[in-house]
Amino acid sequence: MGNSFGEIFRITTFGESHGPAIGVTVDGCPAGLAIDETAIQKELARRRPGQSRITTQRKEDDTCRILSGVFEGKSTGTPIGILIENQDQRSKDYSHIADSFRPSHADYTYQVKYGTRDYRGGGRSSARETAARVAAGAIARMLLQTQGITIGAYVSKVGEIAAPEYLSLDLSRTDDNIVRCPHPETAEKMIALIDQVRLDRDTIGGVITCVIRNTPVGLGEPVFDKLHAQLGKAMLSINAVKGFEYGSGFDGVTLRGSQHNDEFYTEGERVRTRTNHSGGIQGGISNGEDIYFNVAFKPVATIMQDQQSVNKEGKEVTVSGKGRHDPCVVPRAVPIVEAMACLVLADFLLLAKTNKI
Amino acid sequence: MGNSFGEIFRITTFGESHGPAIGVTVDGCPAGLAIDETAIQKELARRRPGQSRITTQRKEDDTCRILSGVFEGKSTGTPIGILIENQDQRSKDYSHIADSFRPSHADYTYQVKYGTRDYRGGGRSSARETAARVAAGAIARMLLQTQGITIGAYVSKVGEIAAPEYLSLDLSRTDDNIVRCPHPETAEKMIALIDQVRLDRDTIGGVITCVIRNTPVGLGEPVFDKLHAQLGKAMLSINAVKGFEYGSGFDGVTLRGSQHNDEFYTEGERVRTRTNHSGGIQGGISNGEDIYFNVAFKPVATIMQDQQSVNKEGKEVTVSGKGRHDPCVVPRAVPIVEAMACLVLADFLLLAKTNKI
Amino acid sequence: MGNSFGEIFRITTFGESHGPAIGVTVDGCPAGLAIDETAIQKELARRRPGQSRITTQRKEDDTCRILSGVFEGKSTGTPIGILIENQDQRSKDYSHIADSFRPSHADYTYQVKYGTRDYRGGGRSSARETAARVAAGAIARMLLQTQGITIGAYVSKVGEIAAPEYLSLDLSRTDDNIVRCPHPETAEKMIALIDQVRLDRDTIGGVITCVIRNTPVGLGEPVFDKLHAQLGKAMLSINAVKGFEYGSGFDGVTLRGSQHNDEFYTEGERVRTRTNHSGGIQGGISNGEDIYFNVAFKPVATIMQDQQSVNKEGKEVTVSGKGRHDPCVVPRAVPIVEAMACLVLADFLLLAKTNKI
Amino acid sequence: MGNSFGEIFRITTFGESHGPAIGVTVDGCPAGLAIDETAIQKELARRRPGQSRITTQRKEDDTCRILSGVFEGKSTGTPIGILIENQDQRSKDYSHIADSFRPSHADYTYQVKYGTRDYRGGGRSSARETAARVAAGAIARMLLQTQGITIGAYVSKVGEIAAPEYLSLDLSRTDDNIVRCPHPETAEKMIALIDQVRLDRDTIGGVITCVIRNTPVGLGEPVFDKLHAQLGKAMLSINAVKGFEYGSGFDGVTLRGSQHNDEFYTEGERVRTRTNHSGGIQGGISNGEDIYFNVAFKPVATIMQDQQSVNKEGKEVTVSGKGRHDPCVVPRAVPIVEAMACLVLADFLLLAKTNKI
Repeated sequence: MGNSFGEIFRITTFGESHGPAIGVTVDGCPAGLAIDETAIQKELARRRPGQSRITTQRKEDDTCRILSGVFEGKSTGTPIGILIENQDQRSKDYSHIADSFRPSHADYTYQVKYGTRDYRGGGRSSARETAARVAAGAIARMLLQTQGITIGAYVSKVGEIAAPEYLSLDLSRTDDNIVRCPHPETAEKMIALIDQVRLDRDTIGGVITCVIRNTPVGLGEPVFDKLHAQLGKAMLSINAVKGFEYGSGFDGVTLRGSQHNDEFYTEGERVRTRTNHSGGIQGGISNGEDIYFNVAFKPVATIMQDQQSVNKEGKEVTVSGKGRHDPCVVPRAVPIVEAMACLVLADFLLLAKTNKI
Repeated sequence: MGNSFGEIFRITTFGESHGPAIGVTVDGCPAGLAIDETAIQKELARRRPGQSRITTQRKEDDTCRILSGVFEGKSTGTPIGILIENQDQRSKDYSHIADSFRPSHADYTYQVKYGTRDYRGGGRSSARETAARVAAGAIARMLLQTQGITIGAYVSKVGEIAAPEYLSLDLSRTDDNIVRCPHPETAEKMIALIDQVRLDRDTIGGVITCVIRNTPVGLGEPVFDKLHAQLGKAMLSINAVKGFEYGSGFDGVTLRGSQHNDEFYTEGERVRTRTNHSGGIQGGISNGEDIYFNVAFKPVATIMQDQQSVNKEGKEVTVSGKGRHDPCVVPRAVPIVEAMACLVLADFLLLAKTNKI
Repeated sequence: MGNSFGEIFRITTFGESHGPAIGVTVDGCPAGLAIDETAIQKELARRRPGQSRITTQRKEDDTCRILSGVFEGKSTGTPIGILIENQDQRSKDYSHIADSFRPSHADYTYQVKYGTRDYRGGGRSSARETAARVAAGAIARMLLQTQGITIGAYVSKVGEIAAPEYLSLDLSRTDDNIVRCPHPETAEKMIALIDQVRLDRDTIGGVITCVIRNTPVGLGEPVFDKLHAQLGKAMLSINAVKGFEYGSGFDGVTLRGSQHNDEFYTEGERVRTRTNHSGGIQGGISNGEDIYFNVAFKPVATIMQDQQSVNKEGKEVTVSGKGRHDPCVVPRAVPIVEAMACLVLADFLLLAKTNKI
Repeated sequence: MGNSFGEIFRITTFGESHGPAIGVTVDGCPAGLAIDETAIQKELARRRPGQSRITTQRKEDDTCRILSGVFEGKSTGTPIGILIENQDQRSKDYSHIADSFRPSHADYTYQVKYGTRDYRGGGRSSARETAARVAAGAIARMLLQTQGITIGAYVSKVGEIAAPEYLSLDLSRTDDNIVRCPHPETAEKMIALIDQVRLDRDTIGGVITCVIRNTPVGLGEPVFDKLHAQLGKAMLSINAVKGFEYGSGFDGVTLRGSQHNDEFYTEGERVRTRTNHSGGIQGGISNGEDIYFNVAFKPVATIMQDQQSVNKEGKEVTVSGKGRHDPCVVPRAVPIVEAMACLVLADFLLLAKTNKI
């Protein structure tokens, strides 16, 4: 019922923002994979609240504990259970929303769907759940690394401020600044904008671009489980995401076929394309070129301002912004986008083993 | 392995462009639903090649036969098997591509993934497969209609020519013209552009917008199977789709939270929002407002021009455009977008029956 | 909703006894497998009604048509659609049960579950559905044969008449007689019993034993999807099956551990067990020894005698046996048991490709 | 990959015998269900080692912690995460089997399948994993109780000692004795046999019978997911199970149809059957009569005797029995059988909500 993702490499998450813990079970990880716990912890640190002045100031350590599936440093083929205890649970911060619905949050829809909700910090609808995805994604990445596949995301837009296209960037520089944009000049402007937005007690949206390199030809399943369809679902399942496009994307609709088609040529043994409007995917299957896509994030719904709303009795009320929230979610969402991409690729990598006799 | 879609209301399709037939099995359709075969046939006619001068001139009747699951006019709860025989199979048209890879088609990726491919007309990668989806979607729509849910898509953009936003349009007029844009002035310009593109032996992309109305509050499952994540996957699984956005979409990233948030108010018994940047979905769950989204289609890859490519031996070759193809795919893709949306909604409608005790 | 089986090698069936056709879609068959249509047809002939004097005298050709997924004699990796038209549809034979519930049939439970039912010949609950499984199983067998795995079932018991244990039998002789018991003396007695039962206008139950040889070590997934758990589900999903046991089975409960344990030894490079109470499966995973199991079939519910029952209005009525039915189902069920075993093994064979990096 | 069970009410377990903890995530539990933690703990106590002189003397508290999905005493519709820490981890007890394969255990098959294994206490193949199932099953039982459905299992056979048939027993007396057989005279003999077996440093098998009452008509899905097929899979997935039969089972094969058929009659508004050879299931769907089935357990593989085996290098070795194990597993397996039955029924109860419009 929505809390699992993947077919072979399959994760199941649980946990609310202010419960005792969140966690994830990774099923289907092949045996014999070296599991580096510090690498998991490092990814969690990239997602962690309180990591810089432009993120929420909540402090959460997000220390993960591997409970199963790893023996003498390697995966055993059995499910890997990972637990992250919740520490900074200031439930009082949220008491004001027990009966009221915060605008553009999931309070109202959860209440009607389930007839109840854990209102503390958004409960299950909180982006805290994504910590579990990041931990699982780190393991998926270890699997992809054995094949040389690399996945790197970065902030390509905050509000109206956009970075140049990815081919001109050095993606190894993404974490050099707190906004996670590998173009220093643009990063500076983005940080300034976020600083201003925070002073305004407001929030702002942004775009994350993700690039996947060294993918073998043949990943993705035809028809419903196309590689980009599964990537799209993965990204759209992240909190606050409003759109997904890959390759030429929405801009591609204005092109003519004669401009858009990627002609083939050979480079040594390899079949290559001269352009890459296809975004590395043709017919839902990877063709070996760079896979790249954009993910649109709306401005965070929690703002430090009064807003009109209604309560559970249907009475109109004023909801005041409280607590400690992100003025812009994209810097912390970079590792989440990468994690979801890793999970999709790992699953297709395993599925592809069964394509031919 | 990619040929099924949905959890409860679940379809499985088979069939290649130039094999004897394509088909679909609809599992999980509740018993007691009145099945109107002419309604299925009518949807197939909207997708059918040769329906107007701006589509491919191939002639296919696309007559469907219901083989099971319907008794005395009603669904019985058992799987509904539907068969569509292929009729216009001019295999010779495709002999030139048996050994060469058409640019931006799935020829190369299928060949590498499977070590073989049915090259006739694109085989399984042909959009012919979507006829099966349209037939299944018509049944899903019958289920949605019992709840008053309506789904209507239309062409909102061809190349640079865009229609006004959906709230100003009368969506009942969509099929009044051959391009399926309910704004007559825009439709005229779109048709003129497609006519020009065809004369240029070229193709052009476009955008389809879809609007879902009268959805109950509570559809969609949290976390990975959010309503918009599943809609996004459904749309991205359609041939030639490059992007998906819902509600404020990619434009929403430039807004501030104070502008973007949808404040709640009450209208009689109903909780409503004053704006609808959320696109009818909050936390992945429908809130009762209009659900609307955009789907970007690239220009059709088959153009009537020579293109450089390589063949199976890795030799560089020239591929010439032959056959009868669409200069712009979006007019015929409108019923496909609707069908996939119907399938997603029908599945979530059934799943929602298990949310509460 | 119950009409699909398997994870990777996954089939979906549709069709009622007296509708136009039944069919199956085989998804996940690896590309490059030589598909022998006559082998499929041969398996269907083994299941076909009217094949001998001890089966029902209904005549059904059960000619299958492959509609997709096979090109130039080999699987392409895309779904294989198979259609079997229904021919001998004497619907009148069944008019007497439109409103009454036949004892120990599925008439009553379908009626209550769905509020309706296709009463002609049992509709979806008819064993006719198993023809689709047999066709799909024949393809699975082709995959297993590439690995040298063989699957053979036979009738080991009819009523009280039982064959000696499998190790003393020559399973290549199973089809030498019409009851499909490879022990000629026992077969003769079984046939005589079935002849008598038919004269008595009655039916009788039986047991089918199945032996799987040359399985690699490592098939089956731990915990819920153990090899024998999936085999058990597969067998119990066949019409009229009441029980499943593997290895020492129900008799094993009376043994002591010191008698029951299978000690290991080495035979050349291979690790073997001296006894095989485990039935070739340890911890849910194949160990390379023979896998063997028994499947219990109840006596066919349709008898040529009057029986007391009730009708849809809850009135007590007499139901008279009509039509042409099997006095004993097991001879025709042998290919069905084999088919389901082939499907289970093929699926686990593919899944096992992802166990290790 | 085998560590999840169920479609809607779906559990995923993780954890090894001697890792830090085991756990289970229950997804798809409807919101609004009162969750009684002491009831979960009570079921765990019934499965717990060291509960009586005829079970293993290992001490494990098996205290469970609910980490999510429950708020103010009720389920919220989000996944329920449950953790059970491992306490009595005497790893030294198992060092002798790090390199050798215990006969009739899963050591050898895990080693070959995965190329590695957590050998401590059997790792993932240990029956310790079933504690997670029991916790999840307790929640499923709470759901079933809201519909009045009751599930009770008991020990019906140990070695050759068998209890009378279930209709003559008072199942509320099952837990009155340590062997969990509600027939006091038989229980006494069973206990004496188990005592003797333990003195012999040996083990013995047994049978558990389970009875499900007050099921509504209509549970179970046709064809592959028949109610008894899913029950069979559930039971066969329990460690040490070798067979499953329901209703008349293996004995039914010797009956004639005229003896075996269950004639219908009406009792007030209800349609009933005069006999119940069907075991409460017809066509894979519950008919409202008692569902009853037998589950065969082999003798525990761990015996306190020397046995011949081989080690990882393929050398023949002697394996000595050490540690603290059960001479007979069935008394402690009663709550496991019940838990798996609860999980199957809960899932079908939810699925049945979508059968009709």
